[in-house]
Amino acid sequence: MASKAEIADFVRQQFPQTRCIIEQVGKLSATVKHPIGPEDLRPGGTVRGGIMMEVADVALYIAILGEIGIVPLTVTTSLNINFLRKPSATRSIVGVCQLLKVGRALVVGEVALYSEGIEDMVAHAVGTYSIPPQR
Amino acid sequence: MASKAEIADFVRQQFPQTRCIIEQVGKLSATVKHPIGPEDLRPGGTVRGGIMMEVADVALYIAILGEIGIVPLTVTTSLNINFLRKPSATRSIVGVCQLLKVGRALVVGEVALYSEGIEDMVAHAVGTYSIPPQR
Amino acid sequence: MASKAEIADFVRQQFPQTRCIIEQVGKLSATVKHPIGPEDLRPGGTVRGGIMMEVADVALYIAILGEIGIVPLTVTTSLNINFLRKPSATRSIVGVCQLLKVGRALVVGEVALYSEGIEDMVAHAVGTYSIPPQR
Amino acid sequence: MASKAEIADFVRQQFPQTRCIIEQVGKLSATVKHPIGPEDLRPGGTVRGGIMMEVADVALYIAILGEIGIVPLTVTTSLNINFLRKPSATRSIVGVCQLLKVGRALVVGEVALYSEGIEDMVAHAVGTYSIPPQR
Repeated sequence: MASKAEIADFVRQQFPQTRCIIEQVGKLSATVKHPIGPEDLRPGGTVRGGIMMEVADVALYIAILGEIGIVPLTVTTSLNINFLRKPSATRSIVGVCQLLKVGRALVVGEVALYSEGIEDMVAHAVGTYSIPPQR
Repeated sequence: MASKAEIADFVRQQFPQTRCIIEQVGKLSATVKHPIGPEDLRPGGTVRGGIMMEVADVALYIAILGEIGIVPLTVTTSLNINFLRKPSATRSIVGVCQLLKVGRALVVGEVALYSEGIEDMVAHAVGTYSIPPQR
Repeated sequence: MASKAEIADFVRQQFPQTRCIIEQVGKLSATVKHPIGPEDLRPGGTVRGGIMMEVADVALYIAILGEIGIVPLTVTTSLNINFLRKPSATRSIVGVCQLLKVGRALVVGEVALYSEGIEDMVAHAVGTYSIPPQR
Repeated sequence: MASKAEIADFVRQQFPQTRCIIEQVGKLSATVKHPIGPEDLRPGGTVRGGIMMEVADVALYIAILGEIGIVPLTVTTSLNINFLRKPSATRSIVGVCQLLKVGRALVVGEVALYSEGIEDMVAHAVGTYSIPPQR
């Protein structure tokens, strides 16, 4: 298992490309936050689907690293997302991940996505990650 | 219906946030290309899942605009993606969309994703878009 | 909205093909149970995927009827399921549905599937239903 | 690899529960057919979702056995299906599977579903199977 501080260090050094900020890790779960600016919008003044999928994907990755330790080559094998409500164009997107199963080779988890500070879920994702055999 | 030039104009003016370039539109299909640089990678030196999902999402959007005309508020309702092979860290990601059904309210299509110039598919997505009622 | 008794009546008369039994309906949720016998198994002595998908699909349908009333032509538009653990070959499959969004035209919900009496989830599904326009 | 006759023998002996009939196997593909009778319908006189998901699931299984040989414990890990058009209430459902990737541990394929003899696809599925490690 890896702590929030260890994962934050790893992300800072090995994954500076992501704009997701780790808020919480542990107990088969993680919460990440992604700031939203004009560059993250699509026509209609709403958040681009790709940004929300990125948040879901990273929330899963962080929750898994929290559970199995820093295994960088853990990779997404599938992701399914349903968009439920129009997110705010000015609030951060928050992704709350809960892992459903941590197997030897595959991990499955779900992610609830919110516009920060608003109760109704804006999207819901379920994803699968593959853990490399020799770790 | 909208031509490639009309859609490219619309994207330039209303959706400058996307880095996807339109290659082809028409006959229930579209091809888009997304350049890949260091900022698009994740640990392991492969392309971030979020970037590939963005390409799938935009390829669907472009194919739909090609079919129904410029209806900006056509929005993704769901997307499912399977990652098949590790994409190249230096080649553009190409998304080839084929629409499977264009209904009154919902459109469904699939997208094959490639590293440019390499034959094997790196990911495969299926997505659904909702068309607003009064257009 | 429709009560459990009204939906059970409707299912008895209009949907006798299903072997799902309604256990609970209401508050954006439903629980259904499907008995498992030798005819429901696949090689390896586990429950056929098709049976678990049927339970997920019917649990969603019942939860939606509970919310919007008896609208028989409410139909599935998509379903995504992840299989997590091997279900018991002799226990009923229980599907617990929670709706995530009830829109004007689309409803999205998730379903947790269990072998009756065993705590760990055996599968998790997310599905979308379309509500016909004139009801 | 296994031939159509070998797989048909295996299905007859080990998987008599399925009503799917194998039509073709080979070259990363398979076609199966499922007869439709009144017991397979749902309210609205259309085919139950569970039946179409069963056909997709079995078509994938048969295509995989054709590729990797008779490995009975190859099991579904996920399935995503989109329903496109109302299937005929009286025609068989035909599932045409094409595998997209056959990996060491995971196989991904897509399935086009039809009402027999009608050109337009009624549903489209993508599924993932896990191959057991020691085979």
